[in-house]
Amino acid sequence: MIHKLPPLKQMLKQLQQVPYLASKNLYRVAVHFLDMDDQALEQFCKSLADAKKNLEKCSICCAWKERQRVCLFCFDTKRDQSVVCVVEAWQDLLAIEKTGGYKGVYHVLGGSICPLDGIGPEQLSIELLVQRTKTDIKEIILALNQTPEGEATSAYIAQKLIGTVIISCLAQGLPVGASLEYMDRLTVYKAISERRPF
Amino acid sequence: MIHKLPPLKQMLKQLQQVPYLASKNLYRVAVHFLDMDDQALEQFCKSLADAKKNLEKCSICCAWKERQRVCLFCFDTKRDQSVVCVVEAWQDLLAIEKTGGYKGVYHVLGGSICPLDGIGPEQLSIELLVQRTKTDIKEIILALNQTPEGEATSAYIAQKLIGTVIISCLAQGLPVGASLEYMDRLTVYKAISERRPF
Repeated sequence: MIHKLPPLKQMLKQLQQVPYLASKNLYRVAVHFLDMDDQALEQFCKSLADAKKNLEKCSICCAWKERQRVCLFCFDTKRDQSVVCVVEAWQDLLAIEKTGGYKGVYHVLGGSICPLDGIGPEQLSIELLVQRTKTDIKEIILALNQTPEGEATSAYIAQKLIGTVIISCLAQGLPVGASLEYMDRLTVYKAISERRPF
Repeated sequence: MIHKLPPLKQMLKQLQQVPYLASKNLYRVAVHFLDMDDQALEQFCKSLADAKKNLEKCSICCAWKERQRVCLFCFDTKRDQSVVCVVEAWQDLLAIEKTGGYKGVYHVLGGSICPLDGIGPEQLSIELLVQRTKTDIKEIILALNQTPEGEATSAYIAQKLIGTVIISCLAQGLPVGASLEYMDRLTVYKAISERRPF
C-alpha cells in the first residue's frame, strides 16, 4: 500500500537510514512527523542543519567544536595539555567527561581498526596522534573499547609510540556493584591477576 | 560539556522528541547527522517536509492520502464500500492490508478512549463514524487492539451503533504457531469457550 503514496515512501526510505530506529517503529515515527505542526517540523530540520553548519571537528583532537571558536579541550589552560586520552568515538569522550575525574585532553580516533569493514589505520586519525606526540606530550592513555577491534587498535598505536611517551591503558577488573558469582570468567581472572594493595 | 556547544544542544533537544529513539543512542544518532554530507541532510529534511506537505487525512476514513488525489480506499470501486473496518491507528490499517485478505474499507479512529490521558470520544473520529453509518453501510468490524482502552472504545462504539448496522469484532483465540503449554490462561479460555466446528 505504501508504494501508492510516493511522498510517504520517500520519507520512510530516509528514516530507514537513521541508526537505532527499529524498523518495527518506523511507521509510528513517520506518523509523529506527519502529525507535527509545520513550524515544529521546520524547527526540527533547522536544528539539524544548524548543528551541521556550526560544528566541525577540531583539527588537533578531532572532537566536535563550534566553527570560528577554539576547541573546548585543546585551548583550555586549566587542562593538562601533556596528557592525551585516546578514544574511539566522541561519545566515549562524553562518557569520560561525565565522570568529572579527568583533567587532561583528548584524541578522537573516529573508530577502530577493522579490516573486515575496510577500516585500516589510514581511515583513523592515528597519524595525527603520532604527529601530536612529537610536541609537549608526556602521557597517552589508551581508552579504547574492550573489544577485539579496540584492543588491536590499542596495540597498533602502542607499537607506533613506544619509547617516545608514557603509554597507559584503562584498568580492567570488576565493575562497581558487581557480584563475583555473576561476572564472566575473563573479568574475574583479570581482577585477580591484576589485584592491587588494599 | 554539551551545554558549551549550543547548536549541538539544540539538535539533541529536537532529537529527544522523536519517539522510539532511546536516549542512550541519542549521541550516536546526532553524530550520524553531523557526519552526513550536506546534500544527504538536505534530502532527509526535504523528504519530511514533502511528506507533510503532500499528505493529508482523508475526510471520510481519516487514513493518510495524497493531497489533490482521492483516498486509496474510499474511492476504490473494487472494494466493498459497505463493510467498514474500524482501527485505532493508521499502522493497524497497514497490518490488516498486509494480510491481503480484507476487501472492505477502513475507519481510523486516531487512538482509543483513555480518560487518564485526557482522550475522550470527542478527541477521536467516532462522531464521523456514526455519521458514516447513516449512508450505505451494512457492517462495522471493530478491529481495535485487545487492550483495556481498545475494548472500552469498542464497547462505546458498539453501544452508539447498536441496531443500525451489523457489528462484528476480531476473532480471539490461539495465534498461529502457538503451543497451548506456553499460552496465557485467558487466551486458552477464549480459545476453548469460542471453539468452532472443525
